[in-house]
Amino acid sequence: MIPLTRQKCAPCEGGVPSLSRAKAEELLAQTPGWIMDDDAKKIRRQFKFKDFKEAMVFVNKVGDLAESENHHPDFAIFWNRVRLDLWTHAINGLFTNDFILAAKINEIEPPKI
Amino acid sequence: MIPLTRQKCAPCEGGVPSLSRAKAEELLAQTPGWIMDDDAKKIRRQFKFKDFKEAMVFVNKVGDLAESENHHPDFAIFWNRVRLDLWTHAINGLFTNDFILAAKINEIEPPKI
Repeated sequence: MIPLTRQKCAPCEGGVPSLSRAKAEELLAQTPGWIMDDDAKKIRRQFKFKDFKEAMVFVNKVGDLAESENHHPDFAIFWNRVRLDLWTHAINGLFTNDFILAAKINEIEPPKI
Repeated sequence: MIPLTRQKCAPCEGGVPSLSRAKAEELLAQTPGWIMDDDAKKIRRQFKFKDFKEAMVFVNKVGDLAESENHHPDFAIFWNRVRLDLWTHAINGLFTNDFILAAKINEIEPPKI
């Protein structure tokens, strides 16, 4: 299988089913640090930085990546903490794109595990 | 009274009471577009932009302002929408600083009313 980080987000305009829980869990195993919600509709990761300035550098890097993939997480910023939620609005659930973006975000900020 | 936009956020390390509801409402009247929660503990404003790129320009301007005032809102970014929450952690409530920052954010992005 092509690694997630070598794949590109493809447009998802809806009309396709969201990923099954089994498929989502398989992809989740390739994106350490991310957790899936109980409904298998979103994945989330939290990040902690030295201060607000460092958090904003990260947010802008993720923003640039999101623009280049044309797929955007929801961001929440609490001074030095950043929480990202990934899901695909058009299908109100998870799609391969979410895991591709999660894997690429992990290349910016590898999980501390 | 000195306009909020001419004031500077002063350090608030706690140990002082949060603003009374009456005082908070008086200051809220000077920050159009912001709403206060039922407990008078936070103020919030939502902003809508053309796209994610424009939203991020705004987020970075608010970030620069927050750094210069040493007082930071909580940010939530949903593609072209940005939600800001202002409150003073050290006192778990509202302080003059929150309204000073709200008024200065309104100078970046005046409310459409």
